[in-house]
Amino acid sequence: MISIDEALEFVKNCARPLPSQQVKLGEALGLRLGESIISTIDSPPFDKSLLDGYAVAADDATSTRRVIEQVIAGGVPHYAVEPGTTINVMTGAPIPDGADAIVKLEDVGLEDVGLEDVGHEDDKRPGESTIQLPKSGIAAGTGILPRGAAFHVGQEVLTAGRHLSAIDIALLAEVGRPELTVTPRPRVAVLPTGNELVECGQRVEGGQICNSNGPMLLALLESMQALPIDLGIGRDDPKVLQPLMQQGLEADMLLVTGGVSAGVMDLVPGVLQELGVRQVFHKVRMKPGKPVWFGEYVREGQRKLVFGMPGNPVSTLVSFEIFVKPALRVLAGGTFIPPQSQRGVLTDSIGHLGKRPTYYPSRIHFGQRKQGLPTVETLPWRGSADLAALTRANALTVLPEGNYEYSAGTEVDFLTL
Amino acid sequence: MISIDEALEFVKNCARPLPSQQVKLGEALGLRLGESIISTIDSPPFDKSLLDGYAVAADDATSTRRVIEQVIAGGVPHYAVEPGTTINVMTGAPIPDGADAIVKLEDVGLEDVGLEDVGHEDDKRPGESTIQLPKSGIAAGTGILPRGAAFHVGQEVLTAGRHLSAIDIALLAEVGRPELTVTPRPRVAVLPTGNELVECGQRVEGGQICNSNGPMLLALLESMQALPIDLGIGRDDPKVLQPLMQQGLEADMLLVTGGVSAGVMDLVPGVLQELGVRQVFHKVRMKPGKPVWFGEYVREGQRKLVFGMPGNPVSTLVSFEIFVKPALRVLAGGTFIPPQSQRGVLTDSIGHLGKRPTYYPSRIHFGQRKQGLPTVETLPWRGSADLAALTRANALTVLPEGNYEYSAGTEVDFLTL
Repeated sequence: MISIDEALEFVKNCARPLPSQQVKLGEALGLRLGESIISTIDSPPFDKSLLDGYAVAADDATSTRRVIEQVIAGGVPHYAVEPGTTINVMTGAPIPDGADAIVKLEDVGLEDVGLEDVGHEDDKRPGESTIQLPKSGIAAGTGILPRGAAFHVGQEVLTAGRHLSAIDIALLAEVGRPELTVTPRPRVAVLPTGNELVECGQRVEGGQICNSNGPMLLALLESMQALPIDLGIGRDDPKVLQPLMQQGLEADMLLVTGGVSAGVMDLVPGVLQELGVRQVFHKVRMKPGKPVWFGEYVREGQRKLVFGMPGNPVSTLVSFEIFVKPALRVLAGGTFIPPQSQRGVLTDSIGHLGKRPTYYPSRIHFGQRKQGLPTVETLPWRGSADLAALTRANALTVLPEGNYEYSAGTEVDFLTL
Repeated sequence: MISIDEALEFVKNCARPLPSQQVKLGEALGLRLGESIISTIDSPPFDKSLLDGYAVAADDATSTRRVIEQVIAGGVPHYAVEPGTTINVMTGAPIPDGADAIVKLEDVGLEDVGLEDVGHEDDKRPGESTIQLPKSGIAAGTGILPRGAAFHVGQEVLTAGRHLSAIDIALLAEVGRPELTVTPRPRVAVLPTGNELVECGQRVEGGQICNSNGPMLLALLESMQALPIDLGIGRDDPKVLQPLMQQGLEADMLLVTGGVSAGVMDLVPGVLQELGVRQVFHKVRMKPGKPVWFGEYVREGQRKLVFGMPGNPVSTLVSFEIFVKPALRVLAGGTFIPPQSQRGVLTDSIGHLGKRPTYYPSRIHFGQRKQGLPTVETLPWRGSADLAALTRANALTVLPEGNYEYSAGTEVDFLTL
């Protein structure tokens, strides 16, 4: 049986980024940029007022200036500032020719420049108002953001591969990109299998349980910005499984749960292989999750990854966290990053038996540190069908293989959920 | 002018959770539970096999047992285990009467129980196969998860107010809840205003810029699981703004950008008040973001919050992070949590002038610690219109009011973005 690291290496070697696509800016949040963005504008596109105030020539010695125009944001000056004159500008307005500083409205006192009919239409030449400049004078450049100060035409403002944030979306809007190239969301089909499963909300007969893996995987995929495709429940019958899996292979990835162990109804690997999915590995030295199955399906240059995960929900969750998440990240245009564990200190003792590393539902207390590390409380857990324990967990403690008893205070690795 | 803390206190006092609603389980991820979930099932619902193997009575002294039946997951046993007999069970199958332990398939060797016609239909009584039990014997309880071991009928499995994770969704499916009560996603209308704005992708004339606040706020809301409503751009004209704002007040929250400062085109507070929105505060001692406006609108028992944010995108972002996020959290059923800053150590010196605390775009290096704290690099920044600086930032350093120079190595607070 291979180790987790060996299995991760196989997943890494099979996973490829999806081909880039054009999307609208409003759909790009959280996706990876498929192109570098070179600005076609200067930002700001003109020398711009940072204040509501009066545009002046700083070296003009006259202390009284006649207000010859008012310019609002979105308007353009029709006049130049000449000695003895000023133009009233609003925040965001272009700086008039002849001006090199803005005097704050508050420093001048004149809020009404005598315009009867200003504004909603166009900038108007006002009456004969005057302002008194403050005695302290004003330095050239005050209150002005020069054209191109933030970035300029031809500058790369965002790099290909970037994971787009809301701020990036704003910058892309600023540089006038209503569409852009991204790596799209992976489409992932979900197929829980097992004769014991009924859909949540339907009548449960003896021996049956509600399908919890399906809703969990759909939610995990949603939280990773993938596009989940619900194939419903597959009964343990090759004639039922085959068409459902065929449909699942239309997606970029297929996740099957159940049917991968050693029982008589464990038909999943056989049916997948009949469909032409090449088995890459089956069974990994880990607990829970040992029977995990991984394969790839390549047709007409398109490559689809298939994970068969054990049917117990905690096994499915652990397989998803360890193997599926890093693969999805690559499909979505990111680099392969294996699960990143952190160090913590056990609050209680815990024993381990066996050759498989165990992922143990735990609660990490980040605020209660010991030896400079967060403390780790392993939770009462009834095994891989016990979802309730997992709802109280915020992490999985990684207990390495071997027979041992860790005492309280031992340092351990954990993976946050 | 009020302080940030005073402004946050006003926001806290006005924000109320939205009324609960019923949603389908598949739509509940990330929402807050509006009811406590009491299980109506035992988990597992029956004593359940944890293995593929053979159900036996542990105290039966016979070493050879005749296989009298096979039970797959989803099936039910038709026979009881009696002395000298065993029943072949698959993982997830109910434990037959008379059995109290499961012997692993691998410990018995017999994988084919001699069934010609097993399985896809129903459990069948097999032929006359026998198994040899391992000499070591077997302890009662081995390989069995007893009924109700994880949780039982009447037990509270999830508490009202919980933020639903994918694991919670799985547990809700397990307990058979296809619908549940949640606090719904807040509907938030977004209205950027300003004559200088044109929609991204349209032709930009002199004095104009592309609307970046709109796309940024829509993306920020999306990332917070709110339901954004795009009202388009509002020109600086009460006749245009009034119907748009009226429409925005149908939502749970209205976010307006621009038009809240002291310029002649700053019409937003006036129009909001004409519409019956009560001003709670206007202007906060902070930089950027000083002109931020906040009001509430109460009609027929429904309460809507309105934020007017300054038009420069960095000001809008800071106002959103400081005031809108905590308010949204309350609307979505959470508690009010003011922005939580962390401590870091400056890598370079930085000066500050003035009476307003400043939020300064910064890059936190969590891996490069000094004095046990992450290091804080303040970024070159051209003021509140400079979005490009913000795309390089992962945090805002909080520089308190006053005139001072912080040298490298000084401890500062920062807010992660």
